[in-house]
Amino acid sequence: MKKIDIDYLKEAFNLSEKARGKTSPNPFVGAIIVKKGKIISKGYTQPPGKDHAEIQALKQAGENAEKATMYVTLEPCVHFGKTPPCTEAIIKSKIKKVIIGAKDPNPFVNGKGIEKLKSAGIEVISDVMPEKFKRQNEAYITYITKKRPFVIVKAAISLDGKMAKENGNSRWISCEKSRKTVHKIRNEVDSILSTVNTVNADNPKFTVRYNIKNSKHPIRIILDTYLKINPDSFLIQSANKIHTIVVTSHKSEAEKMNFLHSQNVKIWQVNEENGFLNLHQIMNKCYKNEISQIMIEAGPTLITNLLKEKLIDKILLFVAPKILGGSDRFLFTLRPDNIGMENGGFKSFDCENFQIGIDLTDVSCKKVDKDIMIKGYLNYGKIS
Amino acid sequence: MKKIDIDYLKEAFNLSEKARGKTSPNPFVGAIIVKKGKIISKGYTQPPGKDHAEIQALKQAGENAEKATMYVTLEPCVHFGKTPPCTEAIIKSKIKKVIIGAKDPNPFVNGKGIEKLKSAGIEVISDVMPEKFKRQNEAYITYITKKRPFVIVKAAISLDGKMAKENGNSRWISCEKSRKTVHKIRNEVDSILSTVNTVNADNPKFTVRYNIKNSKHPIRIILDTYLKINPDSFLIQSANKIHTIVVTSHKSEAEKMNFLHSQNVKIWQVNEENGFLNLHQIMNKCYKNEISQIMIEAGPTLITNLLKEKLIDKILLFVAPKILGGSDRFLFTLRPDNIGMENGGFKSFDCENFQIGIDLTDVSCKKVDKDIMIKGYLNYGKIS
Repeated sequence: MKKIDIDYLKEAFNLSEKARGKTSPNPFVGAIIVKKGKIISKGYTQPPGKDHAEIQALKQAGENAEKATMYVTLEPCVHFGKTPPCTEAIIKSKIKKVIIGAKDPNPFVNGKGIEKLKSAGIEVISDVMPEKFKRQNEAYITYITKKRPFVIVKAAISLDGKMAKENGNSRWISCEKSRKTVHKIRNEVDSILSTVNTVNADNPKFTVRYNIKNSKHPIRIILDTYLKINPDSFLIQSANKIHTIVVTSHKSEAEKMNFLHSQNVKIWQVNEENGFLNLHQIMNKCYKNEISQIMIEAGPTLITNLLKEKLIDKILLFVAPKILGGSDRFLFTLRPDNIGMENGGFKSFDCENFQIGIDLTDVSCKKVDKDIMIKGYLNYGKIS
Repeated sequence: MKKIDIDYLKEAFNLSEKARGKTSPNPFVGAIIVKKGKIISKGYTQPPGKDHAEIQALKQAGENAEKATMYVTLEPCVHFGKTPPCTEAIIKSKIKKVIIGAKDPNPFVNGKGIEKLKSAGIEVISDVMPEKFKRQNEAYITYITKKRPFVIVKAAISLDGKMAKENGNSRWISCEKSRKTVHKIRNEVDSILSTVNTVNADNPKFTVRYNIKNSKHPIRIILDTYLKINPDSFLIQSANKIHTIVVTSHKSEAEKMNFLHSQNVKIWQVNEENGFLNLHQIMNKCYKNEISQIMIEAGPTLITNLLKEKLIDKILLFVAPKILGGSDRFLFTLRPDNIGMENGGFKSFDCENFQIGIDLTDVSCKKVDKDIMIKGYLNYGKIS
């Protein structure tokens, strides 16, 4: 594999970024066609139902594609989804060689695209940068392989690890640039998952603001076991404009559900236990509704419950440079054993030693104006 | 001021770094002498009682110093300390011009050095980079202006803000590179302050290890109100080799004190209230004993008490990418109001809103192998 091939493939990866957040539940892909040392066309995934990256590039290249090389970040598809298979179009175009970033884990493809191209006499080099694709399309990979959405927890905390209390001027603990960053991420995810407690305390919008270009509002999914959501909340009042789902139990009152329906709110019903809705059933509903990414914007109860069910994939912390206190002791003191509650039932993640703590991998940090943004991926391998 | 002058002064600052950690309670200073566009000599502060940076540079330059320009990071001294005044030597050398990084806040100097040079006909440009000097010699500045040591809190925590429990394999939460970084800092500070609880639980050494060059062990200061320190602890057993101070109350038993004296442990006695030793008196004792920097390596109780007394200057957190739990809820949930203890007396830093939280300034973060190191300075301005 020549360096120039790697460079073209990387360029295809860069190109694919233009489609980030606009292709769900499909992956976002980039394709470049090169002939005689020159890029003759480029393409990236269009919204669902429209052209895949390969097709866009092929259309632009036209007959010139003959004997050219295609660099594409993901294995071309062989199946009829919302669009016809890309492999067919590639074969028809008389492309000579295809260099592929990663095999598609989608069981409808998963190597079949490569075989199809090879059997048509096309030279194929595959799986050149599988890790790069995997991280870039982490949502798609999770959606396809785990049959549930990719779950990102976003939280703004103080240096002593405290979330903002949901009231008045303490609501925004993070700096404006951090908040803008959150809005950018909202613009990339399909949906935001929150709870009735957060809605009724904060009256959040969960929309994309801050003048972000080409913005689209994520679907808002609110967990509300007893349908106590404030009918005057922004969410309910704006449900006729922005896709809004309320998740409740099978026991909820018809009258309340009818009211929500009348406001254009969609209702999902799942099992309930001790007041908590079954999170796996919710994830399954998301999967079936082609929701491939969720950002959690909620309080610690939901976050903890997701963690217990191993349903958090990624954590995004905005750490504000403040000590908020809240204890007679400093920062990190509110361990049960420090407040005399060692045997008080706080045991679910109380680790006797660190072997059973939950590790994060691929952790990174950077300053976002005054705040520190910490990113990391949950690695449940070590949970017992 | 020409760019070349700034560059020479910056070089003097870089040079001064060679003396970091070796000059306490004096500042560490760098000096460069330039003549006809060439550096003819360099100097940096030698250990207390030996040459200051200016003298080192002047000795090296000899008669060649005549009509040359000196770049020095700090205002030359005018007083007889352990060494004679630098201003005299500069005047005698017939240096023509002196460019100074920062005025010396030491009341014995504080502009008098500049005046002295000027009155001898030397051209002086002063206070060119006061902020650079201030941050670099933060310990000295605090020691001189506040008449107490500069206090750094070091803590290793998990991502959910928990300090390691002091036992067995959970003792080291941070990665090896973080621990090595701590040893490097130990090598730069005068002293480590800890408590009898930490000593008796962990049996720490508080020495500089990890093969760090030119290492010297910091003075170990242990708070021990009732003289319960384990006589078999490494600290007591090594007190004949490494300077060790135990701080106790005026009421401590003579027999226990005699034992410690026999082990070569120095004892400081200060006031005690509710079992807690008076921290301001301890700081004063440090000041009088020319201890200009302290690194706190202790548990949350001491850290909180220092915070309450506004005695923490800098925080250094090593955040391990782990969620340790310890609550039925997630991460940041152990606020008193989340565990039903809102009115339980945890009020000292419980902020009704963020205006009375404690802000940190100049916060920075970087990866240290697997961990994240967060550094910041306490800004008590906003405390009510």
